[in-house]
Amino acid sequence: MSRSQQVRVDLLNVSLDGYAAGDHITLDEPIGGAGELFGNFDGRVIAGVQNADAPITADRVFSSVWGQGVGVEIMGRGKFGPQQGDWPDDGWRGWWEDAPPFETPVIVLTHHAHDTISFDNGTVFHFVDASPTKALELARDLAGGGDIRIGGGPSTVNQFLRDGLVDFMHLTIQPIVLGRGVPLWSGLGGIHKNYDIESVTASTGLIHQFWNRHHDEDTG
Amino acid sequence: MSRSQQVRVDLLNVSLDGYAAGDHITLDEPIGGAGELFGNFDGRVIAGVQNADAPITADRVFSSVWGQGVGVEIMGRGKFGPQQGDWPDDGWRGWWEDAPPFETPVIVLTHHAHDTISFDNGTVFHFVDASPTKALELARDLAGGGDIRIGGGPSTVNQFLRDGLVDFMHLTIQPIVLGRGVPLWSGLGGIHKNYDIESVTASTGLIHQFWNRHHDEDTG
Repeated sequence: MSRSQQVRVDLLNVSLDGYAAGDHITLDEPIGGAGELFGNFDGRVIAGVQNADAPITADRVFSSVWGQGVGVEIMGRGKFGPQQGDWPDDGWRGWWEDAPPFETPVIVLTHHAHDTISFDNGTVFHFVDASPTKALELARDLAGGGDIRIGGGPSTVNQFLRDGLVDFMHLTIQPIVLGRGVPLWSGLGGIHKNYDIESVTASTGLIHQFWNRHHDEDTG
Repeated sequence: MSRSQQVRVDLLNVSLDGYAAGDHITLDEPIGGAGELFGNFDGRVIAGVQNADAPITADRVFSSVWGQGVGVEIMGRGKFGPQQGDWPDDGWRGWWEDAPPFETPVIVLTHHAHDTISFDNGTVFHFVDASPTKALELARDLAGGGDIRIGGGPSTVNQFLRDGLVDFMHLTIQPIVLGRGVPLWSGLGGIHKNYDIESVTASTGLIHQFWNRHHDEDTG
């Protein structure tokens, strides 16, 4: 049980043209017009395959890694809400109503101050203005020894990848061409060389990729 | 969260010639001389991928479904120990020393009476002389709403399959030919027709199969 704490990206859907979200997040379109990225995804299985009354398929099993061993999430503000600029006094508590699925502390990266928001299920949103490295320091304190999930959106994941901070990624390569959206890979040419990458295709046609950072890169 | 309770077989290794254990279980050879069936399996991941200090691969993620949502296990006596006939007064508490991985009630099927054995981590072995159907009734009471895992060995799984009691199976088809052992499939010709079967190959060459029973078979 001496495993070192990892920084992970879990279950990030990416189109064949490299987009991982739509580009116009609104109250009605949390995915910014790119709902196709989620295919037939049943979000309940992220907390265990037993939470969906549905067959236990490869896609569902792979999705269930999302919650395993994670002690904290870091997300961009667009994943928390559609607001921009100063936070309005509108009572917004996130997209998830009374039960956000995280059930851990969550760090929301934003340049605009906001009070902490707590839920009965253990989810606590902390609003922080910090660089990726500084946010990670805070996350390690909040994680209780668990792993740190970089929860998106794609711009946030991109920043952590650029800074060489991600140990593991599970990508779902969706067989769709979006044509527009938020790109995942901007400025990251060659990054695949730092990872061992396993690709597995489920019978649905989804390609699951597991990126594990080389050990020699960890020390060098 | 209204999912119905399932009877599952999780992570059963099967050779290409249909054997799922060796045929001479002894104290020194718990797998009965068929250790190859386990390949490079790292058992720690059955309680979550974070429990192995190792890359998160498809094989490890698939293995992690073992513990998800299970409330009780049913096993044959050969999985509990190498003894035969009446239980000797030898202080045997199973193969797992102080921390059996189950952390739930476990029903050990045996014709020979034995006192219940409890461990601090929640594992409690109940020794029961019962048919598969009767054992399942008891298991449902012990499961606390969780799923019921048929934990093996192969003869036990075979009995539950013959009686039509298994809703889900995760098989790992190992690319080996054992030549001898305990067969999984005896008397089960045609059983595949009752299931939707998904096969996924990991980069290691292991084939993971997910058997989900047809819904129409459930009611008919």
